[in-house]
Amino acid sequence: MVRQARSEATRRRIIDSAVALINEIGYPASGLADIIERAELTKGALYYHFESKEAVATAIIEEGMDTILGAFRSSGRSGSPAMENIVHGWFVVADAITADSVAQAACRLLRTFGGFNPAAKAAYGVLEAEFAERVRAAVEQGDLQSNIDADAVVATVLASMLGAELVSSAMTDGRDLRRRFARTLEILLPGIVTEDSIGYYREFLARQSMRILPSS
Amino acid sequence: MVRQARSEATRRRIIDSAVALINEIGYPASGLADIIERAELTKGALYYHFESKEAVATAIIEEGMDTILGAFRSSGRSGSPAMENIVHGWFVVADAITADSVAQAACRLLRTFGGFNPAAKAAYGVLEAEFAERVRAAVEQGDLQSNIDADAVVATVLASMLGAELVSSAMTDGRDLRRRFARTLEILLPGIVTEDSIGYYREFLARQSMRILPSS
Repeated sequence: MVRQARSEATRRRIIDSAVALINEIGYPASGLADIIERAELTKGALYYHFESKEAVATAIIEEGMDTILGAFRSSGRSGSPAMENIVHGWFVVADAITADSVAQAACRLLRTFGGFNPAAKAAYGVLEAEFAERVRAAVEQGDLQSNIDADAVVATVLASMLGAELVSSAMTDGRDLRRRFARTLEILLPGIVTEDSIGYYREFLARQSMRILPSS
Repeated sequence: MVRQARSEATRRRIIDSAVALINEIGYPASGLADIIERAELTKGALYYHFESKEAVATAIIEEGMDTILGAFRSSGRSGSPAMENIVHGWFVVADAITADSVAQAACRLLRTFGGFNPAAKAAYGVLEAEFAERVRAAVEQGDLQSNIDADAVVATVLASMLGAELVSSAMTDGRDLRRRFARTLEILLPGIVTEDSIGYYREFLARQSMRILPSS
């Protein structure tokens, strides 16, 4: 058991070292040698746990996505309208990305690999499936426009939020992520929500976007 | 002059080789050795033109962005409303990315590097400035909602389209780019355009999105 704990600690140090480098200088510039040096480990120790730099990236994507999905899932309040949970959920995701360096690195890696890494490609599918559940509930609750294509809403809102995260990361290192999420939802809502509900959700969004502390 | 032409041809071969690899297996997996082998050149020839793999990436970003910006700029019709030029412009950009492998690779590299490469970071700024001009014209022409923040429109629409491109690339290798652009604009328009104009631009968008042939 001691050996297992030590092995787990080594794996953790490799991931933490890679995460720090990816967030500081980006994945392309983070060489395996840099990851080892920062972790104060030998090449052998790294190769015992990971067969390549991409294998480290895959582990980070999986762990970071677990955090992001966990945050989104736990943000759902059973008594609240699904549309509230959608809006609230995105701010919880923003806070999770801001607070968790592994989640932040995972976002960078998703973009870096796109369809070329199975874990990255799968992550898009899982995000879509998770988000689709709430959108379907919002449709059932009559908050979405009657003529709307729910799949188009899922794909478009998800892609728009990923785009907001991408630009926030490139331009401000993620500092204005909440603000960009708020602006994006502000412009998307009128194309999605019924005329009867838009006033309510606009106000709900305004209140959510003003919250400073991480909400969960 | 012969020497200069030959040197330019060598540089071209390096870029084309890197572009093909980046589009086939992604930037992280494309090693300098692979780029040289595919270009049938020596290491020396590559280092004569580029000091590093990232220098090749920078050249691709610059060339690809020139193509994308050129397509967007030339898509503007002086007699047409700015809002038409905005909608039309995005489809022209989609066609440019689909048709031009350097532009496609440049999009992948923008996402890979984000804020970590000066050319990638600059590209976001240039795209924003270019797009902002058309949005400002649409505001002046009274097609945008009176209470709207033009900067928020610019940032949100641009990020949403980049997000659509990102997901299209990851999930379908870019094959459904036009469709994703169309869906995104469909959902964004009601949050941007005045009630008086929305019917007209919805129809304009529907006609644009049905065009199959690249338009310029």
